[in-house]
Amino acid sequence: MLKVDLNSDLGESFGRYTLGMDEQVLKVISSANVACGFHASDPAVMEKTVKLAKASGVAVGAHPGFPDLMGFGRRNMAISPDEARAYTLYQLGALYAFLKPLGMEMQHVKPHGAFYNMAAKDYDLAKAICQAVKDFDPNLVLLGLSGSQHIRAAEDVGLKAVSEVFADRAYEEDGTLVNRKKSGAVITDEDEAIRRVVRMVKEGRVAAITGRDIPIRAESICVHGDGEKALLFAQRIRAAMEAENVLVAPMK
Amino acid sequence: MLKVDLNSDLGESFGRYTLGMDEQVLKVISSANVACGFHASDPAVMEKTVKLAKASGVAVGAHPGFPDLMGFGRRNMAISPDEARAYTLYQLGALYAFLKPLGMEMQHVKPHGAFYNMAAKDYDLAKAICQAVKDFDPNLVLLGLSGSQHIRAAEDVGLKAVSEVFADRAYEEDGTLVNRKKSGAVITDEDEAIRRVVRMVKEGRVAAITGRDIPIRAESICVHGDGEKALLFAQRIRAAMEAENVLVAPMK
Amino acid sequence: MLKVDLNSDLGESFGRYTLGMDEQVLKVISSANVACGFHASDPAVMEKTVKLAKASGVAVGAHPGFPDLMGFGRRNMAISPDEARAYTLYQLGALYAFLKPLGMEMQHVKPHGAFYNMAAKDYDLAKAICQAVKDFDPNLVLLGLSGSQHIRAAEDVGLKAVSEVFADRAYEEDGTLVNRKKSGAVITDEDEAIRRVVRMVKEGRVAAITGRDIPIRAESICVHGDGEKALLFAQRIRAAMEAENVLVAPMK
Amino acid sequence: MLKVDLNSDLGESFGRYTLGMDEQVLKVISSANVACGFHASDPAVMEKTVKLAKASGVAVGAHPGFPDLMGFGRRNMAISPDEARAYTLYQLGALYAFLKPLGMEMQHVKPHGAFYNMAAKDYDLAKAICQAVKDFDPNLVLLGLSGSQHIRAAEDVGLKAVSEVFADRAYEEDGTLVNRKKSGAVITDEDEAIRRVVRMVKEGRVAAITGRDIPIRAESICVHGDGEKALLFAQRIRAAMEAENVLVAPMK
Repeated sequence: MLKVDLNSDLGESFGRYTLGMDEQVLKVISSANVACGFHASDPAVMEKTVKLAKASGVAVGAHPGFPDLMGFGRRNMAISPDEARAYTLYQLGALYAFLKPLGMEMQHVKPHGAFYNMAAKDYDLAKAICQAVKDFDPNLVLLGLSGSQHIRAAEDVGLKAVSEVFADRAYEEDGTLVNRKKSGAVITDEDEAIRRVVRMVKEGRVAAITGRDIPIRAESICVHGDGEKALLFAQRIRAAMEAENVLVAPMK
Repeated sequence: MLKVDLNSDLGESFGRYTLGMDEQVLKVISSANVACGFHASDPAVMEKTVKLAKASGVAVGAHPGFPDLMGFGRRNMAISPDEARAYTLYQLGALYAFLKPLGMEMQHVKPHGAFYNMAAKDYDLAKAICQAVKDFDPNLVLLGLSGSQHIRAAEDVGLKAVSEVFADRAYEEDGTLVNRKKSGAVITDEDEAIRRVVRMVKEGRVAAITGRDIPIRAESICVHGDGEKALLFAQRIRAAMEAENVLVAPMK
Repeated sequence: MLKVDLNSDLGESFGRYTLGMDEQVLKVISSANVACGFHASDPAVMEKTVKLAKASGVAVGAHPGFPDLMGFGRRNMAISPDEARAYTLYQLGALYAFLKPLGMEMQHVKPHGAFYNMAAKDYDLAKAICQAVKDFDPNLVLLGLSGSQHIRAAEDVGLKAVSEVFADRAYEEDGTLVNRKKSGAVITDEDEAIRRVVRMVKEGRVAAITGRDIPIRAESICVHGDGEKALLFAQRIRAAMEAENVLVAPMK
Repeated sequence: MLKVDLNSDLGESFGRYTLGMDEQVLKVISSANVACGFHASDPAVMEKTVKLAKASGVAVGAHPGFPDLMGFGRRNMAISPDEARAYTLYQLGALYAFLKPLGMEMQHVKPHGAFYNMAAKDYDLAKAICQAVKDFDPNLVLLGLSGSQHIRAAEDVGLKAVSEVFADRAYEEDGTLVNRKKSGAVITDEDEAIRRVVRMVKEGRVAAITGRDIPIRAESICVHGDGEKALLFAQRIRAAMEAENVLVAPMK
């Protein structure tokens, strides 16, 4: 039976600030990317989040980000590969500390925001991240952008890589995401987005923004829980997968 | 053969800022308390520090502090026991991430600065820290102020506790440290300080500031490496122990 | 004509995190306490907030807090008077930078959370804050807890002080707030709270938690805008003042 | 009489961490760029630094940086022009708060590290900074890299711009600095560096790395005080200027 993972960013609240509909999105997804205190979250939020994930039976991964809380980790920062390695290890360890007392395993690692986007294009940065992940635990899965340098680096390092796709984003012919500044970068028609992601999963193909059909590896679908609309769309994706007899399940 | 541990705070540099004479003090001590990024240090410093400790054969412990880099973790903060637990777990995990790839074990945990001082007096805070340490790894040693609530909490929770003494500090009759604001709180005569700490280790006794002799448990001696003078004094303490046939060795 | 100020904390969002119903509460209040980037807010939020306040014709004051974003400035921190002075100056200047280009004046200063509560009790801390405020601009008003050490320090330093009261909090016989941990500390009956605050403003008296009537100076009423219920209550307070022919107006 | 300004970054200590030889370098320079708490410094350090500058009779400017203490503001961050504007205003105001009580004027603004380098190349970013500076105080001087977009933006906005040169850096034919990664980027021969900077100031010309002579505007020379060697070199530059009858004086 065909299967796919549904992942979402979780535990992005911080102190007095609440973000996201974690409890509801946990009912939809199979894997949670848990923020580790750099771009978002704090130790108390992390402990609460992994407990919620455990109660929901959702697999947990680390979601390390740039040390840029003010920018929510969304601004490119010119960190060195050595810094990327150290920041990744630090955040993986921090999350591990909340999983271990609960007898939970860390399933995967998915960098956040600008860290994710830079690693998708910069092989050296990606390799530093992947090596850190492997040094911490060689059984961890690297969740990265389908077709990216990050996936290539993970395979080179010897990590299991899982390829992530986006239902609502357009793709260039080379499989990269269309820049958000370009017209057509976001698929606003939800029905079309659902049809596209179903085809990615079932056929491994998608129409690029040029119209040409391209191959794409779709092992995990990114969904969002930062609003009612996002949550409803996530539920629709899950329902569509189930209607197509695609099993929604964690990565391992 | 009688033995004692010599411990020192290490890895307290941060980014562009350098602090401490880590390489030199590593030659003197048997256990290093490694800062974890809250009151001091950053991920790159942590990785470098544990490598240095490994090269020196010095045992490594976590040195969690308050989230107060500007105050170097030296200012009391009214955090709750739940926050103390979460902050402790987070920092233990972060340090663990740098030890694991090197095949190193974490030996102990010693809170830093105001976190240490508050835990010495506040049983509930101390217990939250100790429970976090135990939940992370029940084989960890809690290094706390001799005779304090922190030692009591560690024993109640079922952790091995190691009692720390200070060569250059005066003690009240109840075994607590004389407040630094009081006259005579610091022993400025190095010879006297050496004699006192030798007696603490060998006889388990020390003269309180009142003149009365009190019992004291001295299993680890805190030394400093933040200046030439501190380093020389640490070397004198080690030499005195060796001259007295006291083995300087880690806690476990 | 009797007059009173209505003040509320504003601009407490941070980066990706949104907090408070600033636009709505601005319609109710006469003075806004604008966060300055320590306990909450960031430079972009500050610029946006002062523009909103200007558009609403609401007077603006600085709301300096502890450097504890994770704790939202609500946790006591043992900072020194010198640090309190420097933190106050820094935050006042930061806010001033957004007011000046808009031709706006800074009306007042009200410390936030634990900084406010500690200054209400600790004369030395309060005096350091007041001296910093005066050194920055002697025409600034200090908004502090009615009857507190902070008001006393402001008067000693030569600042105009405005006394703040709370509609929904009980008072001890000495005029201090009943500790939130004590039963009866919060007045949950809104009608009663309204009656109490009207009497505080019109008669300068309130019934202490013991039942005894005490004098109280009520020049500004603190209201909240962090939820629908708080906003409605703030609107009721304003309506009650207007019904009683009390003019709602800024402090100067 | 020909004149030139000597500027240096000052007040870059933070909390427990000390950096730089501020007292010594103040004897050499005419203008100090004072860190404002983002890439370095804290409120207590800022107050101390402006007092030192006042005692030395050195003019003070703001040295705003990226919100990246861990990277000392040296890593490029993809902030927007609006963010650059808000970060600049915030830091200018913060410094102003320490100058005003001392009756001191702010002379100039020089962005720090990566903020400086990015503004030298990115006109939109530079313009946002310059507009913020002008909105705060139109009499402020913008100190930027000679020949850069930053100088152009300052002039477009209507700010007085002062052009900065480096004694120990090689220049490309277009007047930009040779990238540090290229061989020959740094002039290691101090005598040659002195000869070059004297010629820049007196003749307005320098030999580019290609050997070709190019024009360069040299109104302020950047010197460093972060070590004995740097300090000695700064002293040599000052002595060379005086020997050549060039007056070392602030920018205004």
